[in-house]
Amino acid sequence: MELLEQRIRRDGKIKGGDVLKVDSFLNHQMDVRLFEEIGKEFRRLFEGEQVTKILTIEASGIGIACIAALQFDCPVIFAKKSKTKNIAGDVYTTKVESFTHGKVYDIIVAKEFLRSEDRVLIIDDFLANGSALMGLVQLVRDAGATLVGAGIAVEKAFQPGGQLVRENGVRVESLARISSMSEETGVVFC
Amino acid sequence: MELLEQRIRRDGKIKGGDVLKVDSFLNHQMDVRLFEEIGKEFRRLFEGEQVTKILTIEASGIGIACIAALQFDCPVIFAKKSKTKNIAGDVYTTKVESFTHGKVYDIIVAKEFLRSEDRVLIIDDFLANGSALMGLVQLVRDAGATLVGAGIAVEKAFQPGGQLVRENGVRVESLARISSMSEETGVVFC
Repeated sequence: MELLEQRIRRDGKIKGGDVLKVDSFLNHQMDVRLFEEIGKEFRRLFEGEQVTKILTIEASGIGIACIAALQFDCPVIFAKKSKTKNIAGDVYTTKVESFTHGKVYDIIVAKEFLRSEDRVLIIDDFLANGSALMGLVQLVRDAGATLVGAGIAVEKAFQPGGQLVRENGVRVESLARISSMSEETGVVFC
Repeated sequence: MELLEQRIRRDGKIKGGDVLKVDSFLNHQMDVRLFEEIGKEFRRLFEGEQVTKILTIEASGIGIACIAALQFDCPVIFAKKSKTKNIAGDVYTTKVESFTHGKVYDIIVAKEFLRSEDRVLIIDDFLANGSALMGLVQLVRDAGATLVGAGIAVEKAFQPGGQLVRENGVRVESLARISSMSEETGVVFC
């Protein structure tokens, strides 16, 4: 998606080799007009898939997911991150490893909001190692719902997540795929 | 706001006296069409205030804030919750007490996204004890920005937060104000 690639080129900041800071428009500060265009593009890509629910994960996926959901006219669920052992009530849960923070945490979704008859589109802002996305995929499969695919804003294609998730049979559509980046060369897209 | 009050009456669940679960439409699962109407109502209430930035807090405020921001045509910033002592870089930070979780945590916003020339509208899903909201107010004041007010979806008016924040000189507009609730009587609005 040309608009997103342009924005990353203009406002993204590369830190220490493989960290791309996009917090002036994608997370922390969020450009909702850009999110509208992202939502329309996801809608175009998943046209005809009869999505009944969008699933994302807190916190930075929620903005894009909600604005995209206006295009799909369906509710959003966000998986909650939990470090507590006490998972109350009827929930689907799985473990996710955060490479950024060096921690393992549980993600949970209430069973009542993810049904076997749902056709689920996962939306998230970033795909790198794929741990969070594989966790979300697992929750959808545990619910017996149909996974339509995953819509990702920015994929770091030089990290293993995209291949991992696609090899698991998931259709992944990333709007900006980065093949390499460095402070010297900037960001190179696939 | 009649639409929101109706929805709370229909789908809200009262647990153990003062807990109102609205996670089938306001948080966890989010009804984005309802959020659109909420956003339009905030727009009507704060018409002419020339809002340049919407400030919310992760995680459950983000969805409403982003969809409301489409009405105001401005970016959203979300304050991040942090339990780490190491606050990196140039940030505004203050402490917030969570009565639900019995913890004190820091909330942070990068200084670069909150400027003295900004006219800030705070948006959040809930107002109860007011600790999170007072924290957000503090961040805006630390930045020397103009605080236009706070737009809240659901205020528990029988808890002290609303009065506390209003006495601090903040215009608070809550779309549904609950005067009392119990499993026997249901929810009563102001």
